Amino acid sequence: MTLAEPAVAAAVSPRIYTEIQQFYAHQMQLLDQARTHEWAETFTVDGVFAANAHPEPIRGRDAIRAASTKARAALAEAGLQHRHWLGMLDARTAEGGVVAHSYAVVVETPRGGVPAIRHSTSCVDFLVHDGQRWLVRDRQITRDDLI
Amino acid sequence: MTLAEPAVAAAVSPRIYTEIQQFYAHQMQLLDQARTHEWAETFTVDGVFAANAHPEPIRGRDAIRAASTKARAALAEAGLQHRHWLGMLDARTAEGGVVAHSYAVVVETPRGGVPAIRHSTSCVDFLVHDGQRWLVRDRQITRDDLI
Amino acid sequence: MTLAEPAVAAAVSPRIYTEIQQFYAHQMQLLDQARTHEWAETFTVDGVFAANAHPEPIRGRDAIRAASTKARAALAEAGLQHRHWLGMLDARTAEGGVVAHSYAVVVETPRGGVPAIRHSTSCVDFLVHDGQRWLVRDRQITRDDLI
Repeated sequence: MTLAEPAVAAAVSPRIYTEIQQFYAHQMQLLDQARTHEWAETFTVDGVFAANAHPEPIRGRDAIRAASTKARAALAEAGLQHRHWLGMLDARTAEGGVVAHSYAVVVETPRGGVPAIRHSTSCVDFLVHDGQRWLVRDRQITRDDLI
Repeated sequence: MTLAEPAVAAAVSPRIYTEIQQFYAHQMQLLDQARTHEWAETFTVDGVFAANAHPEPIRGRDAIRAASTKARAALAEAGLQHRHWLGMLDARTAEGGVVAHSYAVVVETPRGGVPAIRHSTSCVDFLVHDGQRWLVRDRQITRDDLI
Repeated sequence: MTLAEPAVAAAVSPRIYTEIQQFYAHQMQLLDQARTHEWAETFTVDGVFAANAHPEPIRGRDAIRAASTKARAALAEAGLQHRHWLGMLDARTAEGGVVAHSYAVVVETPRGGVPAIRHSTSCVDFLVHDGQRWLVRDRQITRDDLI
């Protein structure tokens, strides 16, 4: 799996492309609604969440759930609403799944305040289908300010 | 119709998903071009536009047209260009139509000035198809700063 | 070809709509990764890039490559990461291709700094298919601050 070279693989079918768009839309809404239990279920049990803002990858659904629950609680206490937007989705077939290169921004709005882009990032996901639905097996988030 | 629980219903087909994406793209462009007559035609005659920023829902296509025409005129006078972006579209089948949960931001640019996100919102639409095209029967906009 | 009147032509099929979404995603990522040789290949040999921010249109793939290579080098030197987001895609069939009306923003992040929307624009593309892939024959970018 070569995550860095999307262009060499074929684009996914229109059907899979829209399935993945819908998957991301639902996944981001779960996170921003602090439905972190359901959000964690969108990763495989052995899913990995890596980011250049973190010293180490988060490994496994349970650890992903725990980290996101803690992060959402801190936002709620601070009166901040986050909205994760994912776009510019370039989804390519790969052995056993789909490699999706995309952009993601976090729009942050304080209660009674003015919205702003908190983070601008690029995202590389390895997605697998378990027969019923798409799941993230591996996510790599690169914040633009830390490149 | 339970607008708050998109996850319980099936996602729409790829065909309908792209139709709705195209519908929203056209609808937002009509609004931002101040083509408010055509924009109002994208709602049903009895369409409702509700927002947590408004004291009362706007009821009916004529009232929606009048309100948007007034708002666009004020923007033009102030030299402000608005761009409505809708994304993270989660569209689910419902009895008689489609329930679409999405995010929307308004990017505002003053003439000669710097763009900024004016509003960050979430949107819940009930969409119906009249045999020829999609229409909004009910729209609920929730501004993040007012939650 | 009347670029200003998308509503009069039929929307493209779901298949073509998703192909074009994938095309744009890949095209924007090539640009933001400074892969300007590959980026220029997404235009026809006689492709035109016009913008209300430029005194004259850029004509031809070679000139487009040269201009973008120069612009990317300047950004790299300044320590700025740009992310081009295209959205609100309204794609309509036209004689010999597709007319796509969309919005585009440039999110700019300084190294170690805070992201912001650098430009808010609307985009009108005339896209053609060469039997293998989509290409831009004509692009018109209108910056909102210069309207």
